[in-house]
Amino acid sequence: MGKSLKHIGVLTSGGDAPGMNAAIRSVVRTCTHHGIEVTGFYEGYQGVIDDNAETLDARAVAHIINRGGTMLRSARCAEFRTREGRQKAYDNLKKRGIEGLVVIGGDGSFTGASLLSDEFDIPVIGIPGTIDNDIYGTDFTIGFDTALNTVVDAVDRIRDTATSHNRLFFIEVMGRDSGFIALNAGIAVGATNILIPEESTELDEVITKLKTGRENGKTSSIVLVAEGEKMGDALFMAEETKKHLPDYDIRVSVLGHMQRGGNPTCADRVLATRLGVAAVEQLMAGHSSVMCGVRNGSVCTVSIHDAISRKPGIDRNLMHIAEIVSL
Amino acid sequence: MGKSLKHIGVLTSGGDAPGMNAAIRSVVRTCTHHGIEVTGFYEGYQGVIDDNAETLDARAVAHIINRGGTMLRSARCAEFRTREGRQKAYDNLKKRGIEGLVVIGGDGSFTGASLLSDEFDIPVIGIPGTIDNDIYGTDFTIGFDTALNTVVDAVDRIRDTATSHNRLFFIEVMGRDSGFIALNAGIAVGATNILIPEESTELDEVITKLKTGRENGKTSSIVLVAEGEKMGDALFMAEETKKHLPDYDIRVSVLGHMQRGGNPTCADRVLATRLGVAAVEQLMAGHSSVMCGVRNGSVCTVSIHDAISRKPGIDRNLMHIAEIVSL
Amino acid sequence: MGKSLKHIGVLTSGGDAPGMNAAIRSVVRTCTHHGIEVTGFYEGYQGVIDDNAETLDARAVAHIINRGGTMLRSARCAEFRTREGRQKAYDNLKKRGIEGLVVIGGDGSFTGASLLSDEFDIPVIGIPGTIDNDIYGTDFTIGFDTALNTVVDAVDRIRDTATSHNRLFFIEVMGRDSGFIALNAGIAVGATNILIPEESTELDEVITKLKTGRENGKTSSIVLVAEGEKMGDALFMAEETKKHLPDYDIRVSVLGHMQRGGNPTCADRVLATRLGVAAVEQLMAGHSSVMCGVRNGSVCTVSIHDAISRKPGIDRNLMHIAEIVSL
Amino acid sequence: MGKSLKHIGVLTSGGDAPGMNAAIRSVVRTCTHHGIEVTGFYEGYQGVIDDNAETLDARAVAHIINRGGTMLRSARCAEFRTREGRQKAYDNLKKRGIEGLVVIGGDGSFTGASLLSDEFDIPVIGIPGTIDNDIYGTDFTIGFDTALNTVVDAVDRIRDTATSHNRLFFIEVMGRDSGFIALNAGIAVGATNILIPEESTELDEVITKLKTGRENGKTSSIVLVAEGEKMGDALFMAEETKKHLPDYDIRVSVLGHMQRGGNPTCADRVLATRLGVAAVEQLMAGHSSVMCGVRNGSVCTVSIHDAISRKPGIDRNLMHIAEIVSL
Repeated sequence: MGKSLKHIGVLTSGGDAPGMNAAIRSVVRTCTHHGIEVTGFYEGYQGVIDDNAETLDARAVAHIINRGGTMLRSARCAEFRTREGRQKAYDNLKKRGIEGLVVIGGDGSFTGASLLSDEFDIPVIGIPGTIDNDIYGTDFTIGFDTALNTVVDAVDRIRDTATSHNRLFFIEVMGRDSGFIALNAGIAVGATNILIPEESTELDEVITKLKTGRENGKTSSIVLVAEGEKMGDALFMAEETKKHLPDYDIRVSVLGHMQRGGNPTCADRVLATRLGVAAVEQLMAGHSSVMCGVRNGSVCTVSIHDAISRKPGIDRNLMHIAEIVSL
Repeated sequence: MGKSLKHIGVLTSGGDAPGMNAAIRSVVRTCTHHGIEVTGFYEGYQGVIDDNAETLDARAVAHIINRGGTMLRSARCAEFRTREGRQKAYDNLKKRGIEGLVVIGGDGSFTGASLLSDEFDIPVIGIPGTIDNDIYGTDFTIGFDTALNTVVDAVDRIRDTATSHNRLFFIEVMGRDSGFIALNAGIAVGATNILIPEESTELDEVITKLKTGRENGKTSSIVLVAEGEKMGDALFMAEETKKHLPDYDIRVSVLGHMQRGGNPTCADRVLATRLGVAAVEQLMAGHSSVMCGVRNGSVCTVSIHDAISRKPGIDRNLMHIAEIVSL
Repeated sequence: MGKSLKHIGVLTSGGDAPGMNAAIRSVVRTCTHHGIEVTGFYEGYQGVIDDNAETLDARAVAHIINRGGTMLRSARCAEFRTREGRQKAYDNLKKRGIEGLVVIGGDGSFTGASLLSDEFDIPVIGIPGTIDNDIYGTDFTIGFDTALNTVVDAVDRIRDTATSHNRLFFIEVMGRDSGFIALNAGIAVGATNILIPEESTELDEVITKLKTGRENGKTSSIVLVAEGEKMGDALFMAEETKKHLPDYDIRVSVLGHMQRGGNPTCADRVLATRLGVAAVEQLMAGHSSVMCGVRNGSVCTVSIHDAISRKPGIDRNLMHIAEIVSL
Repeated sequence: MGKSLKHIGVLTSGGDAPGMNAAIRSVVRTCTHHGIEVTGFYEGYQGVIDDNAETLDARAVAHIINRGGTMLRSARCAEFRTREGRQKAYDNLKKRGIEGLVVIGGDGSFTGASLLSDEFDIPVIGIPGTIDNDIYGTDFTIGFDTALNTVVDAVDRIRDTATSHNRLFFIEVMGRDSGFIALNAGIAVGATNILIPEESTELDEVITKLKTGRENGKTSSIVLVAEGEKMGDALFMAEETKKHLPDYDIRVSVLGHMQRGGNPTCADRVLATRLGVAAVEQLMAGHSSVMCGVRNGSVCTVSIHDAISRKPGIDRNLMHIAEIVSL
């Protein structure tokens, strides 16, 4: 295909993440640079099925690099999970003369992409956009760095009040299946305990750590709990802890949806820009069913099948470090 | 007393608020300026009862003007509610030769201050420090402006994700008895509805407003709910709304304790600095049992009795404006 | 005129200020609320002369309340200073059936508005939008609070490095004719000296203050200099000071244009929203040649002639307070 | 030496960088964890020469992980460049029983460290702390990520005003010898041109790029200039450009010292924490004259000699990407 590529589509799918706009901009501008037409589909796969779309030129993506959310909006799409839905989508793509599709999203989005590309002759390239960083084949997903800083900023604020009142806070952060956010943010805010799905921590350990901290003169503490933590959520953990440490002034905070938004950080904008360029270049080179990621500082590709089916592991060394410094 | 004032005490009490440190700094430096010694008591009235205190000079309060929380820490103190507790406190104050006390806090803290000053010959001056802005006799309390900006920043983030997914969010903010935060932040984030304790809104009105918004092309909406809202909390409101608008994608977020922390804004630092100077000058002029506040841009005083017993009203005009612009 | 008002225009003029978008949104939505059509002119008066304009409905101003700059853009317009230019502008307004104009800007913009309204039968209402706060008839201009927080955040950063290196910094902030930014921000960052156009400070006083600070144990210092300071700019002041304090490690920073941008604070958004509603209501009530402002917490009006010809005074009491706490 | 290590020293030297406090905290807590005593020296090598130092325990470094600057302060030290100075320093280290030294700083600081360790029997480990990222042997230096985000935030603000007024801005950022900040921030803010010391750009290219941008509909532009850019500084570049594009509204902003300060980002805190642990472990393992860094996501070491004498290269691929997306 190569230089003959004339027209591609781009969409964002799944949960939104800061930096998705920067990725859209990069895809569009790389196309403009190479003389390729780009159609942006609204609300993920639903927009392909409904042919809800617009041509995007370089100016259409001006002044979005610094904005959270996604200008193409996003949605889950049940219809796309059916063969009929995908057929409709394919027909719309063909009707528009679209020769390749860039999908910015998480693993659910890539599953759809993979099916579409397996069933029909339409090349699909994935760009990992999710705050959770839980995608195999890339060191970082777009939005992760921003979410970390949002969490750290919020917990710093809570730390002000925790310290002023000698309190113990259980703070729940996003991560249904993975502890990347909790682990990194936990180190950055000086959490006494970090509870993540990948590690089985016993309540006893948590209690012991808190007691030791107090003995060492710690007057306030933060426990960071990933949503998917095995023992229970932050509220449950707080209640259990209260039973063993009745004289502690314990509070709970669930950071919630604010973790998804905000202006992307520099790192997320640069990552998104790099992956946008790479995705278009992959299509130009005639590739399909790969995800562009970054590994060891360089842009890489991984088969979209691997990206879906495998799980990235947590860095045990970071757990060890968190343990050491949380005296 | 006047120019003969030689030694005063200062403490922070009740919930912490950004700008309390700036107020402490101002009290201390104003004293230094006038050659008055200052003792800072830790953890509110408990520190006076326990004589947990330290002399503060100009350098002791360096580099705190920009920090959230309170370096003197804060606490509720049951013992101070008893006559015996206050006697102990008074004895400690006398033992140290303290001739006046500046109390930075909310109305609970002022009640204690008022009792102490009524029962014993110790002048007490209040400085309103609370994010809720619910104190009579001042247009603004220290911490309110910072909390507003924290809420607005968090809701802006949620707006990114609301817009990307066409969602309706119920967001709960602080304000157990008052809607100052919800009302001002609600206008600033463009909330469709603002639910506050001072107004009785019917569920019907909320539903109607949301429907009208959608008819006018609004694809996402924010409803800001003050903690003390009469119908119920954000979760309850979301569930009730869901019954009437089953096809809406409704989410709930409770902003929680992060609203209390963070570096104070410029306005809060300036306000705290002004009130700190004023409080010391009140003591120097021989006054007692007054709260220093700001009204119509100028520093004012109000009897601490009024500050405790009366309630500031919400600005109806702001409600009206919120109504107009939330199309 | 009152309820018969059918169509108005709105524009932003002069230097941009954070919150101008919130004001535009408020004007537009208030009009929608009252069934009035609104036309937005691009690039200030130039857009009226060139008839570069667009109808704005409630959705056109969605998601701008939180954005810096102005979606209508702004410009100085030499042509509008001529009678011919204003004639062209008036003709375009009439051609479109526009019955009133809302001008968001500073005093230069109001001078144009005043001329237009004096010469032709077109009512004009001003909304004060400028970061400098230097407009008579309002306690606050739109953008001032945001600029203050931008300055305070930047100086807090510089303070980190000043403290780490025991340095003295001269920091220049905006304010060609007025010291509002320097004075308020100076108090908020704990500046040792604040130099503003309204006060004549001698170099001797600056030197003495710095020496006293050092004797009192201060290891780093900030001097905040308003652009329009009489003795000279920050660089000049630093060089003069160096002659008298040769062993100080002195640095200079000019904050520059970043002071104009950024997401508006809560206070600026609320102010802009209130003034937008008020401006439309003024036109509806048949008024002209007034500026809407805020005084003592309430919306007020002032004749645009006074707004142009008089100067707001600096709060001497704030100077006094700055003096006390900067030990 | 290994497990027998009993007492080490730590200092920060050269320009301060956000995250230095997090590194100090990590060094101290890792020592506490392993039962090693730590002495912190104030103001870099000067503190060693003057024996200006303090024992640091786990509590002494509480609540500093989120603060910019360095609690140990920093300074350049001419005396340490002499053999006599280093002898004094060594004598003081020995007198205190210090068996190893951790130096947090840039390459100037490492040169001193290297000399000390070559001339005397005192092991020294370096931790790269500088916002410039210009140290060989590590992918990232502590402070770089924070500085990038500070620059991006400031330029985003300037972009608001640039867009509102159709202006061209030349913005100067730090980087006397290297373009890491300019290149990464330049991509993140969507700069039209990025001028760095490592690339020789001709004025012609800059002009052409700006003209092309305008032809493509760009109404405002940002040119990011690294301090050490070969053609000249931002002001010079602006003046030269003005000669060729006289009708452009060109402005200049020099971001200056604010780039050094501010609360460290999550990434900088995590990096600093990892390198602090690693540095102590290097000393425990009996190593010396190495710098701990991070490469491809893992902690690594490099001989301090290489860190000083070699230069890290700029990523040419990033230059290419910047070129593509800046249409």
